[in-house]
Amino acid sequence: MLSPGLGGGRALSDRVRLSDEQRLDWLRLIRSDNVGPRTFRDLVNHFGGARAALEALPGLARRGGAAHPARICTREEAEREMTAARARGIEFVALGEPDYPARLMMIDDPPPLLAVQGKHAALALPLVAIVGSRNASAAGMKFAERLARDLGSAGFGIVSGLARGIDAAAHRASLASGTIAVLAGGHDRIYPAEHVDLLDAILPDGAAVSEMPLAWEPRARDFPRRNRLISGLSIGVVIVEAARRSGSLITARMAGEQGREVFAVPGSPLDPRAEGTNGLLKQGAILVTEAADVITALTPILGREPELPAQEPAGDAPAPPDAEPAEDERNRIIALLGPTPASLDDLVRLSRTRPAVVRTVLLELELAGRLERHGGGLVSLV
Amino acid sequence: MLSPGLGGGRALSDRVRLSDEQRLDWLRLIRSDNVGPRTFRDLVNHFGGARAALEALPGLARRGGAAHPARICTREEAEREMTAARARGIEFVALGEPDYPARLMMIDDPPPLLAVQGKHAALALPLVAIVGSRNASAAGMKFAERLARDLGSAGFGIVSGLARGIDAAAHRASLASGTIAVLAGGHDRIYPAEHVDLLDAILPDGAAVSEMPLAWEPRARDFPRRNRLISGLSIGVVIVEAARRSGSLITARMAGEQGREVFAVPGSPLDPRAEGTNGLLKQGAILVTEAADVITALTPILGREPELPAQEPAGDAPAPPDAEPAEDERNRIIALLGPTPASLDDLVRLSRTRPAVVRTVLLELELAGRLERHGGGLVSLV
Repeated sequence: MLSPGLGGGRALSDRVRLSDEQRLDWLRLIRSDNVGPRTFRDLVNHFGGARAALEALPGLARRGGAAHPARICTREEAEREMTAARARGIEFVALGEPDYPARLMMIDDPPPLLAVQGKHAALALPLVAIVGSRNASAAGMKFAERLARDLGSAGFGIVSGLARGIDAAAHRASLASGTIAVLAGGHDRIYPAEHVDLLDAILPDGAAVSEMPLAWEPRARDFPRRNRLISGLSIGVVIVEAARRSGSLITARMAGEQGREVFAVPGSPLDPRAEGTNGLLKQGAILVTEAADVITALTPILGREPELPAQEPAGDAPAPPDAEPAEDERNRIIALLGPTPASLDDLVRLSRTRPAVVRTVLLELELAGRLERHGGGLVSLV
Repeated sequence: MLSPGLGGGRALSDRVRLSDEQRLDWLRLIRSDNVGPRTFRDLVNHFGGARAALEALPGLARRGGAAHPARICTREEAEREMTAARARGIEFVALGEPDYPARLMMIDDPPPLLAVQGKHAALALPLVAIVGSRNASAAGMKFAERLARDLGSAGFGIVSGLARGIDAAAHRASLASGTIAVLAGGHDRIYPAEHVDLLDAILPDGAAVSEMPLAWEPRARDFPRRNRLISGLSIGVVIVEAARRSGSLITARMAGEQGREVFAVPGSPLDPRAEGTNGLLKQGAILVTEAADVITALTPILGREPELPAQEPAGDAPAPPDAEPAEDERNRIIALLGPTPASLDDLVRLSRTRPAVVRTVLLELELAGRLERHGGGLVSLV
């Protein structure tokens, strides 16, 4: 059973739907220990499908030196999540399927499965994210509302994080035109809890999306992870108010890394809530005082097919049977790794080992919880 | 008696002081009817000096078709102004003299004589203009003060227009480090009158400059004219708060035309006092939230000798005796002129007349009050 390839760059018309059985395997694989979006892609590409990857997992993790056997999501657990989701009208859309948001597919680490509740068509709109301080000023909220309303009228869907302040203002002003709430936790753990009503108002014409298990309580580190989806779904990201070192600046950085347009709303140098946005403007973000500024900048991009970021690795064919590392090869590669991030190219060159073998060793280490992945394809030992 | 050439581009070391007699002639010429800074330069270049130009004026204006004989400033009037100025400690510094501000010399239409009161050394500092709304917000004034103080501490002199609001805040915060008030009227007509005390506080370590006669009451159109001196004196101009279509935006435009750096302070899109500055930022002005932003941008320029703007016309040698237009040549050139601005090149080409002759006819028309000069060397009939 062969899953669709996950190398990216696949034309939209080529997209294939998973069978129910495949979708269950995908869910099991992404819910297993030490499997993140990048590892998921490597595993499926390496073994030719999620089922084969699931079968290989215990052996890989053991060879990678796992202290404890890595927990693999059982078929029953996955079926339970799938059933609970369906009962609530939540569907799992798989990377590569026709419904999967086109621009999100092109980021470096797209979620293999996106749990979508609400109106799927909203995800097909050209999307603009509007984010900013939770602790926003009245003027900032008013501006976010005006911008979201005007961009909504112009045919854009508005993406945000369902947070207090700017996010909520942006969602509220675009309920009718279509707005997307990207959750840091699961669909059953709405944060903040007081926004459950806002979410109910979003769903008739918009959607809520999450990559986390239904009952996942969001932790602090899940918010930056979620922010990559806010920017990844969007053609551009507008930061309305942001203090120095705020989460909105993480979204702006991710948008930049993903090749998305970054917009910022100016503010007085004496207003601490404008420090972050003024800083972004100094770094080259596009200045926004009205919706026309966003529309003018995005119009030339709208017609274009989303582009692969430069760092996107090319899709691999399933690994040949001889990609199994010999013991001395594995040792050579591990010896080259340390806390300083190293590139795959360097590992291949310095270990004098074939790329497929190096990738297998890295997968083993990752599944053993011993590998950390960085931007630009760099890896280090934990 | 030969005055220093006025073609611009003269190295600082070449500068020559005028004799008292020459200075008096210069004052007479610039105070005569229909003689502005550009005509002054053309006349002195054409006739080889101010004295010869004064002698030629009546004939030129008559041939240009003046309705009434143009009033020429008499020697007695000029002596009176000179004496009154000296009595108040005001000195006339002539274009090309060592004390003349180096950057001002390089604009398209520098005043031939600058009446300077106070400490001349302040004009030799690297200068930054800080301008903005008269009707400024408390935050805007506070920011202008902070910026002026910090730039002053960094060794910059602060140029502004002595107006209420941002201008006054910038002057007040840079009294000790050196600040320049550029007047729209004469030194005896301080506007607004309530700022006479501020001016007194400026003079010990700073200066006030004017190109207008001592007793000149400033009219509305003198303020934009004055603004070209604010930007012309400065390496860069910072606009702190400015509504749409405000005088500060004229200063910003002139700074751009003169090749000076334009800086703007951001503000909320909902604040009408930030409309002008946010607009400047969209057009490429450098965003300023602290003095370091200005210093960083200007440091590379500081060491450089000021450069001639591209549109600066090359200095002409005194016109040969045969530059006197024949009657049919004059008629051909006048026939080509109308309300639509035309270039000197086109006039030369279409009239089939030598450039020196065309220039003489234009001077005649100008002195008769029949010619208007526009940017880029264009002229039209009034």
